[in-house]
Amino acid sequence: MTEEISQKLHPAEAADRLLRLTDNEAAEDVRELELDFAAETLESMDPWQASGIFKELSQQLQGKILKRMDPDDSVDLLQELTSESRRGILERLDSLTRKRLESLLEYPPDTAGGTMSPEVMSLPGDMTVGEAVGQLRKDERKLENINYVYVTDQQGNLSGVLPLRNFAFKEPELRLDEVMKEDVKTIPPELDREKVARLFDKYDFLALPVVGEKGKLLGVITVDDVMDVLRQEDTEDMLEMVGISGAREESVWTPWKVSVKHRLPWLVINLGTALLAAIVVSVFENTIAKYAVLAVFMPVIAGQGGNSGSQTVTLLIRGIALGEITDGQSSKALVKEATLGLLHGLSIGIIVGLIAFFWNGSAKIALIVGVSMVLSMIVAGISGVLIPVGLKKVGLDPALSANIWMTTITDVAGFFFLLGLASWLLM
Amino acid sequence: MTEEISQKLHPAEAADRLLRLTDNEAAEDVRELELDFAAETLESMDPWQASGIFKELSQQLQGKILKRMDPDDSVDLLQELTSESRRGILERLDSLTRKRLESLLEYPPDTAGGTMSPEVMSLPGDMTVGEAVGQLRKDERKLENINYVYVTDQQGNLSGVLPLRNFAFKEPELRLDEVMKEDVKTIPPELDREKVARLFDKYDFLALPVVGEKGKLLGVITVDDVMDVLRQEDTEDMLEMVGISGAREESVWTPWKVSVKHRLPWLVINLGTALLAAIVVSVFENTIAKYAVLAVFMPVIAGQGGNSGSQTVTLLIRGIALGEITDGQSSKALVKEATLGLLHGLSIGIIVGLIAFFWNGSAKIALIVGVSMVLSMIVAGISGVLIPVGLKKVGLDPALSANIWMTTITDVAGFFFLLGLASWLLM
Repeated sequence: MTEEISQKLHPAEAADRLLRLTDNEAAEDVRELELDFAAETLESMDPWQASGIFKELSQQLQGKILKRMDPDDSVDLLQELTSESRRGILERLDSLTRKRLESLLEYPPDTAGGTMSPEVMSLPGDMTVGEAVGQLRKDERKLENINYVYVTDQQGNLSGVLPLRNFAFKEPELRLDEVMKEDVKTIPPELDREKVARLFDKYDFLALPVVGEKGKLLGVITVDDVMDVLRQEDTEDMLEMVGISGAREESVWTPWKVSVKHRLPWLVINLGTALLAAIVVSVFENTIAKYAVLAVFMPVIAGQGGNSGSQTVTLLIRGIALGEITDGQSSKALVKEATLGLLHGLSIGIIVGLIAFFWNGSAKIALIVGVSMVLSMIVAGISGVLIPVGLKKVGLDPALSANIWMTTITDVAGFFFLLGLASWLLM
Repeated sequence: MTEEISQKLHPAEAADRLLRLTDNEAAEDVRELELDFAAETLESMDPWQASGIFKELSQQLQGKILKRMDPDDSVDLLQELTSESRRGILERLDSLTRKRLESLLEYPPDTAGGTMSPEVMSLPGDMTVGEAVGQLRKDERKLENINYVYVTDQQGNLSGVLPLRNFAFKEPELRLDEVMKEDVKTIPPELDREKVARLFDKYDFLALPVVGEKGKLLGVITVDDVMDVLRQEDTEDMLEMVGISGAREESVWTPWKVSVKHRLPWLVINLGTALLAAIVVSVFENTIAKYAVLAVFMPVIAGQGGNSGSQTVTLLIRGIALGEITDGQSSKALVKEATLGLLHGLSIGIIVGLIAFFWNGSAKIALIVGVSMVLSMIVAGISGVLIPVGLKKVGLDPALSANIWMTTITDVAGFFFLLGLASWLLM
């Protein structure tokens, strides 16, 4: 065991240090840790990071650590393994732990059910405040992570909530169902976890109960889980926008062999789309041969279209993620962004037209460059709205390689306007 | 008052509805609301949104609402106003509220001091648990938002912390300094608010006390503030990357007049940089006139360089924001991304070379296209690391228009390799 990683550290710090090592080295250190501390350390990592180290441990140690981890974290970790090794590990667990994990594994990882912890503190409504305090006191260590007590009826259905901080201020002889808050905000297990996160952000919750169809209390989602979700979803959006798939597993420190798998496929797809732009240019090869100055302005037109399109695409993707845009409103965004494209296009088009005139001395070339700039930027504004909205409509992530599609459209349109106008007016 | 906005709503929902109206219409509705509800509704908005509506209210109403808002939110709102109207409003407040707000206004808004609430529940260490419960009970409404009681000595210096949820489990006759946790994690008021947010994310805090140089308890930052910070910082990074300044105030629904101000300046800067690429192309105008097929491959080379560069830039910016990259490690990232550039360049370069060969029939053109693709993508990898790291080193936000700079470099380099090689080998 390296000197650096010891029980004296906070598990989050131990996790940081382990992540600087190879999975193999880290596993060696994990073997030396106390089981509880090892479990907490793995909990502090993102699941794909923890699973890399976890795979290197013996099945016996895997079982011991899994049992000690929060069930929501152990399920996230199990989701990262092959179904075969997952089955192997589950089979070796005691039946209670196994059943609990198996029931959680049924929820897709991106839903409230896949994010919740089933370890929820629930007490019957006919218990008194004093009895509840007595019962809770028995396991004070557990209380560290609990802020709410949920009150359930005999069928396990949720009937109310009581913040733990309020217990000190209630008369001990009152029944829980007399002091609880009955109007509880709940979430269904199938709700998308990003929507769950936005709910927390909007209403400033610390925890929300997950409740099944018939009102059965299934688990709880806490604000610390939500912060992880927000970070992961934002990272995913940023990386997907530029064509990095498997975004949840990609960081600066991802081994290059893995990075190639995440990035090269999109570059190949982009090559296909870039060839579309190339075909457009090739149609006008004769025009270029005669007026090579057009090639000089090709990167200017394409670059400006691409950049203003990126602005629109990025705003739309963020707006969709934050729930600012609902389905009916995309036409309003379309009008705004097309208008901005026109305004930006006119401003930049006039400047570029003037530059082209002084560069080349031809009023016709200046006009061609200026007009194609205006048209390109309108197309950029429109496609900047339609690409993310369209991706969402067909059920894909709006961020998915949005910039790559957008650049293709602005390149194709820009070259078509520039070279098409030139062929028409000059040839 | 429109039917839709009423006290029956959650303030966050009332805020949502108001934000769909113009500032003027929204202000009209706000005038009809109860003062406490109006204050909570404005608190639920981002400061720049709230300030737009706030400006439309009478100075008298402004004062009444400000007094009822959480001091950290009212300060954020005041920061958005001109210093003149800020002074006008402050002068009309009672001296206690004014002094409190003025002391908070001294902290820059992006720091822990500018984010904290000064309304912190602090009690003396020699008070007993029972006395504390009695005192806290007096203001049960306030308790809604409080999770920790901070224990201070006679000088107001922080000596320990006690979670409110633990009060029910402590003997009433014990003194607070006997049951408190002495080892409290604190943050200094000057700490960057993004770093504060990452601390919460890493260690799963619900609240952290802000403590001055001599140990004086200044305020508290809670997890709900932190979620706002995370959302705003991520939005800012995403938008700045594509050259949208004033990112905190830009959304899909920003009026177009404001949007032009946020976006056009970067498009003009980009025009300047795009002209660099144009100059490179113009140097080789004769070569293009003779081999117009080169213009066909210009967008392919530039597009691939730009896209792979965007991948690297985005990863680096996110890595820096999440604290994954510290100063000494950027050379490691540089080696990795340059290597990936080489690998991606070879893969794509071979494909593009073959396409060029079948397109044009010339082995020389194929070689030129393939080699310049490899070189461009290596440059993309290197500049994708150096741009964000460089921006950070000179004290700018690493995200600041990073993609615009990167595209310029990859365009210039790509055209230089393609056309330079062609001139050398073909002319």
